[in-house]
This record gives sequence, C-alpha cells and structure tokens, in this order.
Amino acid sequence: MSSHSRSQGNQQWGGRYSAGPSAIMEAINASIGFDRKMWRQDIRGSLAHAAMLRHVGIISADDEAAIREGLSAIGQEIEAGEFPFSEALEDIHMNIEARLTERVGEAGKRLHTARSRNDQVALDVRLWVRDAIDGLDGQLADLMRALTDRADEHAATVMPGFTHLQPAQPTTLGHHLLAYVEMLGRDRSRLGDCRARMNESPLGAAALCGTGFNIDRHMTAAALGFDGPTRNSLDSVASRDFALEFLSALSICATHLSRFAEEIVLWTNPYFGFVKLSDAYTTGSSIMPQKRNPDAAELVRAKVGRVSGALIGLMTVMKGLPLTYGKDMQEDKEGIFDAAETMALALAATAGMVRDMKPDVTRLREAAGAGFSTATDLADWLVRELRLPFRDAHHVTGRLVAKAEARGVDLSGLSLEELQAEEPRIHSGIFHVLSVEASVASRTSYGGTAPVNVRRMAAEWRERLA
Amino acid sequence: MSSHSRSQGNQQWGGRYSAGPSAIMEAINASIGFDRKMWRQDIRGSLAHAAMLRHVGIISADDEAAIREGLSAIGQEIEAGEFPFSEALEDIHMNIEARLTERVGEAGKRLHTARSRNDQVALDVRLWVRDAIDGLDGQLADLMRALTDRADEHAATVMPGFTHLQPAQPTTLGHHLLAYVEMLGRDRSRLGDCRARMNESPLGAAALCGTGFNIDRHMTAAALGFDGPTRNSLDSVASRDFALEFLSALSICATHLSRFAEEIVLWTNPYFGFVKLSDAYTTGSSIMPQKRNPDAAELVRAKVGRVSGALIGLMTVMKGLPLTYGKDMQEDKEGIFDAAETMALALAATAGMVRDMKPDVTRLREAAGAGFSTATDLADWLVRELRLPFRDAHHVTGRLVAKAEARGVDLSGLSLEELQAEEPRIHSGIFHVLSVEASVASRTSYGGTAPVNVRRMAAEWRERLA
Amino acid sequence: MSSHSRSQGNQQWGGRYSAGPSAIMEAINASIGFDRKMWRQDIRGSLAHAAMLRHVGIISADDEAAIREGLSAIGQEIEAGEFPFSEALEDIHMNIEARLTERVGEAGKRLHTARSRNDQVALDVRLWVRDAIDGLDGQLADLMRALTDRADEHAATVMPGFTHLQPAQPTTLGHHLLAYVEMLGRDRSRLGDCRARMNESPLGAAALCGTGFNIDRHMTAAALGFDGPTRNSLDSVASRDFALEFLSALSICATHLSRFAEEIVLWTNPYFGFVKLSDAYTTGSSIMPQKRNPDAAELVRAKVGRVSGALIGLMTVMKGLPLTYGKDMQEDKEGIFDAAETMALALAATAGMVRDMKPDVTRLREAAGAGFSTATDLADWLVRELRLPFRDAHHVTGRLVAKAEARGVDLSGLSLEELQAEEPRIHSGIFHVLSVEASVASRTSYGGTAPVNVRRMAAEWRERLA
Amino acid sequence: MSSHSRSQGNQQWGGRYSAGPSAIMEAINASIGFDRKMWRQDIRGSLAHAAMLRHVGIISADDEAAIREGLSAIGQEIEAGEFPFSEALEDIHMNIEARLTERVGEAGKRLHTARSRNDQVALDVRLWVRDAIDGLDGQLADLMRALTDRADEHAATVMPGFTHLQPAQPTTLGHHLLAYVEMLGRDRSRLGDCRARMNESPLGAAALCGTGFNIDRHMTAAALGFDGPTRNSLDSVASRDFALEFLSALSICATHLSRFAEEIVLWTNPYFGFVKLSDAYTTGSSIMPQKRNPDAAELVRAKVGRVSGALIGLMTVMKGLPLTYGKDMQEDKEGIFDAAETMALALAATAGMVRDMKPDVTRLREAAGAGFSTATDLADWLVRELRLPFRDAHHVTGRLVAKAEARGVDLSGLSLEELQAEEPRIHSGIFHVLSVEASVASRTSYGGTAPVNVRRMAAEWRERLA
Repeated sequence: MSSHSRSQGNQQWGGRYSAGPSAIMEAINASIGFDRKMWRQDIRGSLAHAAMLRHVGIISADDEAAIREGLSAIGQEIEAGEFPFSEALEDIHMNIEARLTERVGEAGKRLHTARSRNDQVALDVRLWVRDAIDGLDGQLADLMRALTDRADEHAATVMPGFTHLQPAQPTTLGHHLLAYVEMLGRDRSRLGDCRARMNESPLGAAALCGTGFNIDRHMTAAALGFDGPTRNSLDSVASRDFALEFLSALSICATHLSRFAEEIVLWTNPYFGFVKLSDAYTTGSSIMPQKRNPDAAELVRAKVGRVSGALIGLMTVMKGLPLTYGKDMQEDKEGIFDAAETMALALAATAGMVRDMKPDVTRLREAAGAGFSTATDLADWLVRELRLPFRDAHHVTGRLVAKAEARGVDLSGLSLEELQAEEPRIHSGIFHVLSVEASVASRTSYGGTAPVNVRRMAAEWRERLA
Repeated sequence: MSSHSRSQGNQQWGGRYSAGPSAIMEAINASIGFDRKMWRQDIRGSLAHAAMLRHVGIISADDEAAIREGLSAIGQEIEAGEFPFSEALEDIHMNIEARLTERVGEAGKRLHTARSRNDQVALDVRLWVRDAIDGLDGQLADLMRALTDRADEHAATVMPGFTHLQPAQPTTLGHHLLAYVEMLGRDRSRLGDCRARMNESPLGAAALCGTGFNIDRHMTAAALGFDGPTRNSLDSVASRDFALEFLSALSICATHLSRFAEEIVLWTNPYFGFVKLSDAYTTGSSIMPQKRNPDAAELVRAKVGRVSGALIGLMTVMKGLPLTYGKDMQEDKEGIFDAAETMALALAATAGMVRDMKPDVTRLREAAGAGFSTATDLADWLVRELRLPFRDAHHVTGRLVAKAEARGVDLSGLSLEELQAEEPRIHSGIFHVLSVEASVASRTSYGGTAPVNVRRMAAEWRERLA
Repeated sequence: MSSHSRSQGNQQWGGRYSAGPSAIMEAINASIGFDRKMWRQDIRGSLAHAAMLRHVGIISADDEAAIREGLSAIGQEIEAGEFPFSEALEDIHMNIEARLTERVGEAGKRLHTARSRNDQVALDVRLWVRDAIDGLDGQLADLMRALTDRADEHAATVMPGFTHLQPAQPTTLGHHLLAYVEMLGRDRSRLGDCRARMNESPLGAAALCGTGFNIDRHMTAAALGFDGPTRNSLDSVASRDFALEFLSALSICATHLSRFAEEIVLWTNPYFGFVKLSDAYTTGSSIMPQKRNPDAAELVRAKVGRVSGALIGLMTVMKGLPLTYGKDMQEDKEGIFDAAETMALALAATAGMVRDMKPDVTRLREAAGAGFSTATDLADWLVRELRLPFRDAHHVTGRLVAKAEARGVDLSGLSLEELQAEEPRIHSGIFHVLSVEASVASRTSYGGTAPVNVRRMAAEWRERLA
Repeated sequence: MSSHSRSQGNQQWGGRYSAGPSAIMEAINASIGFDRKMWRQDIRGSLAHAAMLRHVGIISADDEAAIREGLSAIGQEIEAGEFPFSEALEDIHMNIEARLTERVGEAGKRLHTARSRNDQVALDVRLWVRDAIDGLDGQLADLMRALTDRADEHAATVMPGFTHLQPAQPTTLGHHLLAYVEMLGRDRSRLGDCRARMNESPLGAAALCGTGFNIDRHMTAAALGFDGPTRNSLDSVASRDFALEFLSALSICATHLSRFAEEIVLWTNPYFGFVKLSDAYTTGSSIMPQKRNPDAAELVRAKVGRVSGALIGLMTVMKGLPLTYGKDMQEDKEGIFDAAETMALALAATAGMVRDMKPDVTRLREAAGAGFSTATDLADWLVRELRLPFRDAHHVTGRLVAKAEARGVDLSGLSLEELQAEEPRIHSGIFHVLSVEASVASRTSYGGTAPVNVRRMAAEWRERLA
C-alpha cells in the first residue's frame, strides 16, 4: 500500500471524533438531523394533546390558546426555514418544546403534562407513516390508471406471452399491462390494511405505564384521525410492527416495480424492439443515436434493494429487544423515511414511463407469430373438437409442428391434406385457431387473454379507480 | 493447509456430480424432494378440476368417477408411505398424474385438459399457504389464550417496568404479558389479511393466457374454498406476492417471539430471578443444579433469523423477473415450508413456556420498589394536586429523591416535614402515591397499568379468543 | 372461508405438538436431524483428541487404542447406514459418544476428559466448513477452466459489448467470458482468505474457560491440519464470524453466477439468439420445438436468494448475543450446509452450461456491427490522429453518424468525401478503425478487448489453473 | 379514516413530481446529491490520468499543467464550500470536468481522452472505499488498544463466565475483554484482505472495452497506490464485488460490536451491576438518579441493522445484472457511504465506552463465586488426581453439590469428611481448586482463563498494536 494515500485517508477520517466523548455522544445520540422531517406531525400531536388537557381541566383555556398560537408560529418558522434547530436539544420534540417555552413561557412548560417523549415519538412516527401511506396510495392509483389506459388502448395489440423468457403463446399488450394493475391493486390493498391496523393512537401511554392524570385518550385519538387509542401502554411505546409491515408492503411493491422495469429494459433492447422510450426517460450518447439507455427503468429496478434493505435492517434492530422502549428503536426513522421517499420516486418514474412508452405494434405482431406460437391452440382444438385425450393431442401436434418446421412454414401454412395425414378427422375448422389473432380471441375463459376480456377488465378497473 | 485433509474433503465433495449433465440437471431441476409436501393440495385441486370438467361436458361422468377413485387411492398410498415417488418425474404433479394414468388409463390422460403445470403449481402453493395460515392462526390463538390466562392470574403482581433495560416505573406482570397479546393479535390479523387477499383461485389460468375451453373457473374456485377466480391469467401464474406477504407476516411475528424469548432468557438469569422454567424447557448440568439453561427460549429467539432469511431470499429471487413463469420461482417452496414449520414449532414452544413459567412474586415486588421507582408518581402528584408546571415539578422531585438517597431511604421513607422543606404545599395525601401498589393502581388511563385495567382487558381478550 | 378446508388444515397442523412439552422440546432442541452431516468431522476430532490425551498421559495407550477402534467401527456403521441414530441423544456428538461407550466401555467414558460439547461443536463446524471450502475451491477452478477454454476458443469471436443492455461497442466472446474468470478468481481468493483466517483449532477451549488438565492444544491443532490453536477460550466457543464470512463469500460468488445465468437466459432468448443450450440443460415442450426453456440457468440465477438469505439469517441470529455459547448458535448449521450444497450444485450446473453452450458466431458478428457500434473508434481516431480535443471529436462524430443514418448506411459506408465534408483533415487511414474487427483489434490497452490480449490472458489463466 | 388528515398528507406528498418527466428524471438520475462525497478521489484520479496522458504524449505538458492547476483550484473551492454544484450536471465527475473547462478551456476538454465515466466511477468508488478501510483500520486498532489496556488492568479481576446467560465457570474480566480483541483482530484482517484484493486500478478500462490509445495503465495504477491495473476491462466497469466484500466485512464487525454493546446494556442493568458508565455515554432522568440509560450502547447494538441492510440491499441490486455497466449500480454509493460512516461512529462510541466504564470489582467477585461455579473444577480434580473416568467424576460431583446445597454452603464449605463420604480417596489437596481464584488460576491451557495467560496475551497484543 502507498503509505501516502493511506495517511491521506486516515487524516481525513481520524479527526472527526477527536473532540472526545461529548462529540461522539452527540453524533450518535442526536436525531434532529433526520427526525425534523416529522415536525408537522409533532405539532399536530401537540395541538391535539393541548386541546384535550384543557378539555379535562389539566390546563387552562388561556394556556391552550398560548400553546396553539405558539405552535402555529413555530410551524411557520420551520416552513420558512427560519427555525433555529439545535443539535444540543437532540430531537425535533425537544427543539419544538424548548422554542415553545421561549415564546409562550409557563404554558409551554405545561404542555408535556401526562405525556412523555416515548409516546410522543411513537405518535409522530405513526402519523408520518400514515401520511406516507396516503401519499403513496394516491401515486399507486395514478400508476394503475396509467396502466389501465394503455391496456385499454392496446387491448387487441398482440404480442408474445413468455415463460422462461421464451415465447410461449400469443397474448396482448393490454392483458400484459393489466397483470401489473392486479399486482399494484394488491399492493394498495396491503398498504390499506397496514393503515387500518396501525390506526390507533399511542398518545397517553406516557413513558410506558399510562398515567394517573384523568386524560381522555379517545378524544386525542379522534382529533388525530385515529380509530381509537391503543389498548396497552407498554405495547404502545415498545412496538414497531406497524413500521415493519409498512416496509414489507413497500418491499413487495418494489419487487413488482422491479419486474416491470426489467421488462422495460428488455423491451427497449434493440433485439426485442418492443417499445421505445423518449428522451425524457433515457440517456443517450451524442455519437450513438440508437443507444437509448433506459436509466430510469434500471434505477427503478434497483430500488427494491434499498427498500428491502431497510426492512431487513429494522427487523434486525427489533430482534430480541426486551420491552419497552430502547434507544435502538431510534434507528427506525431513517429507513422508513428513505424507503417511503424512494417508493414515491419509483412510482412517479414508472407512471411516467408507462405514459411515455411507444409500443411498436408491427414488431410485436411479428414476434407474436413466430415459433409455432399457436401449437397449444392446435392441440386444444384436437381435444375440444375431436375428443382426443389431452396427452394424445399433444403427440399429434408435435408431429404436425415437426412437419411444418421441415417445410419451413407456419402451422397455418400446412394444407388440410398434410394435417389429415397425421389425424384424418381434422377438418377445415382448424384454421380458425391457427392464426395469432384467432388464438388470443379464443382465450375467453375468465381472466384469459381475449381482447374482449381485456376491455371489460380495463373498464372495471377504470371505474374502481375513478 | 494439510494436503491430507484437503484431499479428504475434495474426494467426498467431488464425486457427486461426476455422473455428468443429466445428474446435475436432475439434481437442480427436480423438486419432488420437497414439493411432495403438497400432495394433499394437489389431489384436492385435481378433484375440483375434474368435477368441473365433467360439469361443463369436457369429460364424461365415468371419467370423473375413475379419476376420483384413482386420486383417492393415490392419497391412501402416499399416506401409507407406499407411493413410488420418482425423481425422473420431477415433481409431485407429474408423479401423481403418471400414477393416475397407470391406475385408470385414458381418464387419467384427460385430467390435464384446460390446465397446465403453471396454474397447477400456483394453485397448490396457495392452498398449502392457506392451510398453513389456518394452522398458525390456531396456534396464535392458543398462545394468546395462554398469555391472557397468566396475565389475569398476575393482574396485580407488581414488577419493574423497563426502558433501556433500566427499571423505570412499577408495572404488573399481567400488563406486561398483555402487551404481547396485543402484538400477537396484530400478527393474527396480518395473517388474516394475507389469507383474504390471496384467497383467489388461479386454476384455469392455464399455461399463462387462459384457455379456449369453456371451463367454469368460478365453480372450481368455490369448490376449493376461494372467494372467486383471479382476474388476470398472466398475473395468476407469475405472481408470488402472496408468498412474500406470508413470509413478511411470519417474520414480524417471529420478531415478537424473539422479544419475548429474550425476556425469558433475562428473567431466568439468576440476577434477575424473575421467573423459573421447569426441566421441560431447560437443559441443565448434572453438577450445577442452579444452572438451568433456557435452550428453548434461545432457539425461539434465534428463529427469526431463518424466517426473515427466507423472506429476503424470496424477495431476491423475485426481483427483476419478467412475466410470466420462470423456473426461478420454484425456489419459493422450501423457504415457505421451512418458515411455516419453524413458526409452528416456535409458537408451540412459546406457549409451552408461558404455561410452564413460575414467576417469583416476592422477587418481582422487591425489584419493582427499588430505585425510587415512584418518582414519576411524585412529580405527577405535584402537577395534579399543586398545579406546578410539569417541568417545575420535575425539579422539586429531583431534589426530594436526592434527599432520600442521601438518607438511604425510599421516597415513602421521607417525613412530611422533609417533603415540605422542598415544597411547603405538599400534604399527607402524597403518601397515597408513593408506594409501588399505589403507583400501579393510580395509572388508570385507558391502556394504563392499573390492575383493574388489566383484569378488564384480560376479560375482553378471553371473550374474543373463546 | 370454507370451514371445511380450514378444519382440514388445522387438523393436520394441530396434532403435531399435542404430545406435550417433551415432544416440543425434543423437536426444537434436537439437532441430530441435521448435524449428523458432521459425523466424519466429529470422529476426526475425537481421534486427534484421544491421541493427545494419551500423549500427555491423561489416558492409557490401551484406552486410546480402544477408542480408535471403536470410532473406526462407528464410522463404518454410519457409512453403511446401520448406525442407530437416536433423537433422545440429541446431537451427533452424544450419539457417537454413547455408541462408543456401548462398544468399548470405560475407555469411551474417558474420551470426553478435558473437552466439552462447546469446543467440540465449534471444532466440528469449522472442520466441515473447511472441507466445504476445499470442495468448492476445486469446483471454482473447474468452472474457471471451462470458461478459459471457451474464451480461448472464442478469443476473436466478435459480439456486442453492452452497457444498460444496449449495444455499446464491439467486444469478443472470449473477453466477455474472461470477465467472469476474473470475478470467480476473486471468489476463490475470498474463500482462501476465509479458510486461512479460520484455520485455528478451538479444541481445548473446553466449556468456555480452558482447562486445568495439561493438554497439548498445539498437538491436536497440527493433527487436524490447523495452523495452530485459537488464542482465547471464550472467543473460541462464542464466535461464528468464520461462518458469516464463509456465507458472505458464497453470497458474493452466487451474485456472480446469477449474472452469468441472466446472460444465458438472455442469450438463449430467440431475439438475442446468441447461444444455444442442448437438451441437457433445458426443458422443452413436445409441441413447440424451438421453445428451449433454460431451466438450469434460471435456477442458478435464483440460488443467490437462498444463499444470501442464509447469510442474513445467521447475522440476525448472532446480533446482540452476549458471550459465550448460547443455544441460538445451533441455528448456524442448517444455513451453512444448505448454502454450501447449493453452491456446489450451482457451480456444477454453470460449468456444465459453459461447456454445453454453442455460440452462434454469425449472429454474434451481425449483432456486433449494428447500431454504429464503431462510433467511439471514429471519435478516438479523430483525437489520436488529428489531435482534436475529446469533446470536439465527439461533435464531429455525432454529425457523421447522423449523416450515415440518413443515408441508411454504416459508418464504413460513408465515402471519404462525405467524411471530409465534416472534418477536412480526415484521411483514408480512418477506414482501418471503422470495421468491427478493426475496432476490437485496436483495443490493445492492458486488459482491453483485443483478441491478442484475450489469448494472452487465457494462457495466463490456464497456467495458473493447471 | 379522517378525510382531513388524508388530504393533508396527499397535498404535501403529491406536489413533488407534478412538474413532469424532467423533474422526475432529474430526481431519480442525478447523483450529485451524494456522490460529491467522492470529490477528493475524483480529483486524485484525474491528476494521475493527466500526468499519464502527458507522459505518453497524448496531451502536452502545458495542458497537463493547466489541468493540474485547475483541479487544485477546484479542490480549494469545494473545501471552502464555494463550488457551484449543479444538479443539471448530474454527478461529481461532470461537475468537476465542466468547471475545469470553464477555468482552463481546451486543456479541460482533453482530460477525458482515453477514459470514460464508467471507469472513472469505478475508480472513484474504489478509492473512496480504500480510504474508508484505512480510516476504519485505524479506529479498529484504537479500539483493540483500549480493550487490551483494560484487559491487562483486569487480568485477575474474577467475574462469572456465562453460557446461555447462566453463570457457568469463573473467568476474568481481562480474559473476557480479550475475546473481543480476537474478534476485532479478525475484522481488521478481513478488511485488510478486502483492501488487498480490490487494490487494482480500473482506470483505462474506458467505457467497457479498453481503448486504442497507447495509455499506460501501470503508471496511473502506481501513481494512485494500486498494486497494478485490473486485467479485464469488462470486469473493471461491471463488478462491485469489492463493495459487497467491504459491506460484508463491516456487517460482521458490526455483529461483534452489537454483542459487546449487549453486554454493556446487561452489565449496567442494576441486577447485574457489573460496570458503571459515566454521564458521557448515558442519558438520565432528572428525577431518577440511578436510571442511567445506556443510549450509546443501545445505538451501537442497533447499527448492525443498517449495515447489514446496506449489504443485502446491494446484493439485491447486483443480482442478475448482465454485463457491463447498468445504471442500477449507481445504487452502490449511498449504502457504502452510510455503512462506512456508521461504523466509524460505532467504533468511536465503543472505544469511548471501553475507556469510560468502571467495573465493580467487588460485585464481579461475588457473582463469580455464586452457584457452585467451581463444580467443574472439582470434577476435573477427581479425574486428574483420582483417575476417575470423566462421566463417573461427574456423578460424584453432582452428589457433593447436592449435599452442599442442602447444607446451604459453598463447595469449599464442605468438610473433608463430608467429601470423603462420597469418594473416600478425596484428600485435602482438593481445597486448592474449590475457590474462585484457584479455579481461574488453574486454567492454564493455551488460551485458557488463567491471569498469567491473560497478561501474556495482553502483552502480545500490545506489541502487535504498537
């Protein structure tokens, strides 16, 4: 190793914590660097708490009014970027409370009655996650609408359906896009279940045991849009399963986006040539005009890594923690924030690409017809019309495909005589299923690829998403 | 390295795949080694499919009867351990179908009409997961009942409540145990949501595009206990989000079990001495009678590793897979099976320990009272009764605790005069909150630690779990 | 939900642990079901221990001889499948020791002197991992040899080089395959480092504190092929970082295999059409002869999931475990075993596919020339020969490509006049770099794609791997 | 749900990407927000590249001088916080290059000759990781020194040794601390191996295929402290296994820190009472003076989550990526940066706590003697002195412990007659092993807990770490 470069590295690295224990402790302990993101939630929670304290007579109406005004002014300060954040005050809760007392005096000191930083943190994180769910829910709906619109537009655009990345049977682009609508619909429903399950207010659990003050937890819960208060104070400050569930739902959704992104990467590859993306979602080369790099799709494909990393990270943090609050749990926030914002970006980029992409209908049609893609239709026809047992029909089909291949024609290129040479009962009705269009049109089983199905399903989704 | 030991290792290792490509391909491709676990589900699915084929006229009544009898006989063979499983037939589906044709001839060949291995696999996995959810749901309820019973029994057994593993305030063992009932209740509800969301039948999606046969997917769905058929055939064979959601729910639940297990390990440590486990759940040493190793608790604590490993493993598998079916997805099964069985065992062991453990009530009471654990009660009393602002009350309390510490007594050991020296308005009413029992009794806020709350909540849970 | 199917599930599920605590404890605690895999290692360790005990005078020569004979007989029993494994004896260590005492009496009882199950387990796992590393090392070398042979064969086979899955510049198949040789070479070196670091014997650490017997740990270490004994007894029984490092190295290697597998899946896709795999590594359809599903490649691509799942699983297990041994650590084995065996299979399958695959040289050549793939060569020529600044050369190239595109020709299809119209100093020397072959031949910088480089590097690797 | 709060969330959330595709693409594509952290590495790489270009005659000495001056000025601008970073220029490389051309004109345009952003990125990340390794290596050595010093100080401070968190045998605090020195020593060695393996220069791999310019890659490699250039250009821009290995090594180290942190949390728990931490590393309560929350230890314990999350995240990103560069790989940086900085902080905090902690020697001694902790010593004495077979010695010991327990005394409290009643050959020599001090002193096997061993090992480490 070059001692030169090593010492360079060391020098830069080493200085950081040389100021001693207090610098280290502040660096590891303070959360204001990231939890300030929850300032809206913190103020909302404090307003609800103050109103309740007044209602049950713990603070006076004047105190509550002072608190309300003070918090409102603080909100404006933060929004304007003028709030004097302090590392020494450690977190967003102490920053706001200290500032409040600065502004309104005694009343500020009374705000923390019958609550604790533990239930306050638990509340703020829940509110933030709930807000994030609502935002992501809207984005998911938007993406589903975009997919549904393109699906309807391309309900009859035939393309190859793949298994093992090998063309298997003809399908339609509309049917393919609707498959993602189904996945995203479940993602939404997962987030909805998560929201419903977590929608209980921990406020009033206090440090861990509840309180002897005659507080009204149902009142604060209602004011904050919760379905009610949590039922056990220890659980309220100690649990983060709502965060794990949120991250799980996001990770699963990110998996779906990564699959679609992979398809975009494949489809824009020149050998596929299925769709084109505009400059808006690609980067290029000044010297290679055809080279349209699908950067946005690649990044969406990759994002599942950081989201599932956040999930496994928090799971590892929570493993084996005894009740109730441990400082370990402060590690929940950065992962949650990053995962939620990553998903917001990935959803926006995916919706953008869906709206942007231009399918090459001719190329898709051509690809759909290649490779004896209607062989299954032929086999099914033999079963359906001639009552051959399924496995026997397969053998006849295999021989006919071999014959077509030898002749260098498609299945529809074989004459009736050639077909009958293998199975005398074959009649001209068979030609109705050997074309790509006939194949897709025939698959009318519920959920099947027939354009009529696709249009009906698109209409259903459009209605649901309206 | 010792060349001796290296060659030993190599020899053993190398021979395995020397038989060439076919041995390798069979080893990597065959799934019969693990998917035979789904034999019940496979037969159930085939029975429903056959009944539907007959109903719509694709097969005859005789054929269906033959299939039904054949499958029933095969089920008995498997149960009896007499089924001739074949690696060459690759998976459970082909093993059963081939055996069926052996037994009933032509009819067996007709069974596979209008379905494909792709929708058959998707169906069987769903059925297996759904059965597992039902089994685990029952176990969760059992564990919750065990916790509720012990909670009720110990509704008034005071113990220290911890934050940061430091005693913070007195609570009760009952309240502590009910915190886990809440967590497990959410775990159950998560599994329930997962079950409801996945409860759609993929049967009839065929290879990927649906089929041209006039099948009745609603009929098979109903016969198999599904809420209906899936709505998109491509999605049906390509998606495994139900499996990811199942593994997520299990991982979160495993986190909860790991936390309780950690507490058992701590509580049975001699310095804690909170509870004792019998020989049934510990291992010992013939020469150290006090050494009761909480092996079962340690193993439960560890199990979250393999369950979340299975989750992240399958997420990695699904990342970036283009539609529809890829052989990658065969990797879903072993993780699912192992995670479900691991949880079954961990839940059984946890319920066993809950029922087995003997709390040392005297030790818990003593620990609950140590360390000025009612200081918060004193501060709250000053706010509540004397209207001191919260932050000021804290200062007075701090001085009183210092005084008690200096005198070597508990807070309740200070005389009224000593108390009044710091705050003249203090009166004898204060002694009602300074004992451990008074402290817990006073925390009657909703969800708080008061025994009256605990008993009420235990009764509620008992009713819900009945 | 159909109550029918639910109860079916429950019934099957519920019965398992109804036999009570002892059934549960045996199920969760016993490891003989999987740790029997270490029987060879256990016997090897015991032989070394006995020889040392005799050497230092703790047991007699007769005792050692009896132990040696007994263990050898036991080894034969196990190999022959005739060993009476007992769940009640819990693990492989107790199974073998009990059987030994059965066979040789008193001497067997003396074997466990100055050791404990804790150091015995630690030893056996290390030996097993070390053997696995040696086996995998051989397989890695084999795969590297296969790649090197094919690389040499195709040192001059031009193909497109990709970035973002878009063709970027011509390269050669040989160069591409050697990229994987580099990756796998690092994988080997990682495993080698892991082996060297872990190659210390824990035997003699006893339960946790070492022993008062005058044992000779250096002697047993040497006998077992270790570089020496571990230096701290607590660390010896408490640490599993060697297992984590082993799983990390395997996970990284699995990532490499997944990348190559993805390329196989892409290359065998008909739109790419770069290579063909024989039936040995694909599965097909009796009715679609072109459909060659690359099942083996897909499975190799997926395997990274279970290997990295095992890694994260064990990391989760080890998180926050206080010293020394905890039963949690029993969870290390199944993940290690499965990951090692998975990699053995994946390496064998990959080497098989490398040897099996048939590149379509014509198709590769055609693809390499498409899309103005030598535009970079043109720009570089302008810089090199005409001294244009890099960024200016890019602009000229961009204009020439646009002109060629408008004319529907390749860059080499432009006349000298057309070239000079954009940059008058261009001379006929430029045509030496515009063909695909010229492009690859010109990239002779160290590590560049020129066939002469590829051949030299293949020769170097072949020598190293000999 | 309260429609009020939902719309609030949506409003805040939705606005972000409404500016359309360009806003989305900039947000997802630009990396300048995080890769600016590599500015030093980028400049270092460009200086080496320019010097080489001049050396081989591609640029003039004047050009190189201009570039050198320009880059130096840019470095000063960045350090001074005056550099005009631009989102539109996307990344640190383009930001610096554009600024350079602004400052020095033509020469700046020539700098990018014979390199590409792909090898530039690969270089910068490697340099950053290498610098981080050097910094962390220094911190690891510092922590090991701190542990060694405390170990030496407490070489003879007896404390309980635990298995299963149950006291098992007496050990010493010094021996216990040295166990961590061993683990951290391996962590250092892992990082060292990672550094050595990755210490090859990718510069000159260009976009992916190398270049036709007569560059000297050995020269730039040497100038940048590398052992040489990489051997395959495709591998150079496509591989990130060095990053995965770095994250693996950090994750394993984080596991070790989490274990030590867990012990700090346990040891500072009042029931353990083994050590005290000062205010520097704890947070307290103004009203509960004994409540010293070990926040720093809890945070260190948790950090393993985010580090291993970064590892699994990047592994997921890399899974199945075809060669060569894909934009997915841009996701490597944030995880690497965060993990390295997290470890720097965790190491600093741990070293701080090691130096800060005050062991309670009296309490440790008392705990070490409880629970018949020398029973193993007694059994070993029977084997050693009286030649009882190991398993028989255990039975005698068990009976003696039972007798002592019944009498309410320690083993050393039994009289010779009482001992002889169980085994007549016992003589007074036995009392030499029954005390805690005798027990630890007797365990002199290599690596055993005897203070003489501990002192020798501490001296060895001190020398190695000097």
